[in-house]
Amino acid sequence: MPTNRQILLDNRPADTATVNNFKLVSTATPALQNGQVLVRHHYLSLDPYMRGRMNDSKSYAKPQPLGEVMVGGTVGEVIESRHPDFQPGDPVVGMGGWQEYSVADGNTPGALRKVDTTHIPLSYYLGAVGMPGVTAWYGLTEIIRPQPNETMVVSAAAGAVGSAYAALAKARGCRVVGIAGGPSKCRYAVEQLGFDRCIDYCQHPDVATMAAALEAACPDGIDGHFENVGGYILDAVLLRCNAFARIAVCGMIAGYDGQPLPLQNPSLILINRLKMQGFIVSEHPQIWPQALQELSALVVQGKLKPRESIAHGLESAPEAFLGLLKSQNFGKQLVKLI
Amino acid sequence: MPTNRQILLDNRPADTATVNNFKLVSTATPALQNGQVLVRHHYLSLDPYMRGRMNDSKSYAKPQPLGEVMVGGTVGEVIESRHPDFQPGDPVVGMGGWQEYSVADGNTPGALRKVDTTHIPLSYYLGAVGMPGVTAWYGLTEIIRPQPNETMVVSAAAGAVGSAYAALAKARGCRVVGIAGGPSKCRYAVEQLGFDRCIDYCQHPDVATMAAALEAACPDGIDGHFENVGGYILDAVLLRCNAFARIAVCGMIAGYDGQPLPLQNPSLILINRLKMQGFIVSEHPQIWPQALQELSALVVQGKLKPRESIAHGLESAPEAFLGLLKSQNFGKQLVKLI
Repeated sequence: MPTNRQILLDNRPADTATVNNFKLVSTATPALQNGQVLVRHHYLSLDPYMRGRMNDSKSYAKPQPLGEVMVGGTVGEVIESRHPDFQPGDPVVGMGGWQEYSVADGNTPGALRKVDTTHIPLSYYLGAVGMPGVTAWYGLTEIIRPQPNETMVVSAAAGAVGSAYAALAKARGCRVVGIAGGPSKCRYAVEQLGFDRCIDYCQHPDVATMAAALEAACPDGIDGHFENVGGYILDAVLLRCNAFARIAVCGMIAGYDGQPLPLQNPSLILINRLKMQGFIVSEHPQIWPQALQELSALVVQGKLKPRESIAHGLESAPEAFLGLLKSQNFGKQLVKLI
Repeated sequence: MPTNRQILLDNRPADTATVNNFKLVSTATPALQNGQVLVRHHYLSLDPYMRGRMNDSKSYAKPQPLGEVMVGGTVGEVIESRHPDFQPGDPVVGMGGWQEYSVADGNTPGALRKVDTTHIPLSYYLGAVGMPGVTAWYGLTEIIRPQPNETMVVSAAAGAVGSAYAALAKARGCRVVGIAGGPSKCRYAVEQLGFDRCIDYCQHPDVATMAAALEAACPDGIDGHFENVGGYILDAVLLRCNAFARIAVCGMIAGYDGQPLPLQNPSLILINRLKMQGFIVSEHPQIWPQALQELSALVVQGKLKPRESIAHGLESAPEAFLGLLKSQNFGKQLVKLI
């Protein structure tokens, strides 16, 4: 049995998460039971939702238990199988967690899925053709429901969700405006991801300047918005929303460390007859096949060109994760394990 | 031609509206053109939305122009008609405004509607079987979409919208919890309107105590909420919402005088996957016939027993309106003009 290195949640953050909240340990991988599959992880996905699970407070997911392996999406290769549907060498995607190997139950629906790596690189199944891509798809098509020529906005535009959102919204004939941090991410969003405009929030650090930048970038107002961040960016978006605009609330990363993050003017929800709706993509398994099909096609056609930020080795995961929370990544944040 | 007394918007409120914002004038009613109908108003409706129109700021409705008759719903009797569909003596509902008579165009769809006063008192067409009732119907059935045994909450519970909401929600098998100001309104809500519980916000003047009262009144949490008020009541409701709860935003009366009214914890929208949606009932004319039919039936069956607060004489309208904004009314606020 190979030795498995794992990262556990050792203790909970008081406010800002730190590397000391995590602990690296080594164990032997267990012997397989009937129906089980041993997977060697090639990539681990790091995602903002993980920060919420580190807290011991009411959230949409149960808190990550202390002393257990951090949850997380993984892609890898089947090493050993006691399930007829999986053979050694199969490329698979699953929720293997922050570790080098995992044992999956081949009979649990959705626990482990074989993927095609002929046309799409394995790592993309953690990003553009994985949970982040499907997240963009759900928010856009099921909550925002865009019409051609409408203006769609997204915060964290250069990230895994934002890049998929841009490709999906362009495919629906929309104008797409991003919000991202720094000139290089904004340039990348426009030149590589197909955004019509991208606003650098570092240059617009308060509601008034952000609202002015949105007015310039969205001359016809905002019809749909996908929120990954919260705080003053959401306040500014609300000021520029057209009547009947729809806001999909996917993340409030600005508030993950516990600071209060009020919405300054909720009466705009009434004044502009807005719809604001939160969602968690894992609760909507029925839309995954359709979403993945469209996302795969966009990648194969070159219309969705995801960028990846890759950290190397399991031990680099905590620091890479904290960097993600500070927007230090550029594109989908992964940890390469092999 | 009879003399017509009118109340005009004379100037805009600096913050709190006062009687000095209005002006009473007298004019002659004009001679009728072909297709026009002269209506003598029996009742004028006073509604919170009118406060928004007094401001010269962006809102869902154009600001009420200065020097013009205040807009408002009216019921009355046709006095003279040059339209074949209307005869003197016909009871009608329309948007006649704050005046004793109005001239309506019989050809404009929805401008004037004949009503049946055999089973339903004329004044009810301004309340339970009028705009407020349809408002409750739209928010409940189109935005909240209640399921049997779910818990439905409404603020301003003893008012025209709240009372219709209770009857409609009970008819759908829900538990209904109101929030109202003072023990007599709360008692009335439970004893006469069919609320299962009613919380007195005067006894729970902050988020913590209101959230505790909601927890006690809604042991299974909140699945649907109809917001008429905003402010700390909405903050407390959000704390008690179940996953996938729906919030129809109809009014933010707490903020009509211009004070900031932030939503303290919008991340709850994400955590509980809430839907929050603002609406204006006049933008959904297609649902009015169905809504009015159900509301009429509930009144005729004695399941919706609206209460009215009646001021007498046009000159009493400004003060009655300001009282409404301070929750001094008890039930649908009307002005009797005849």
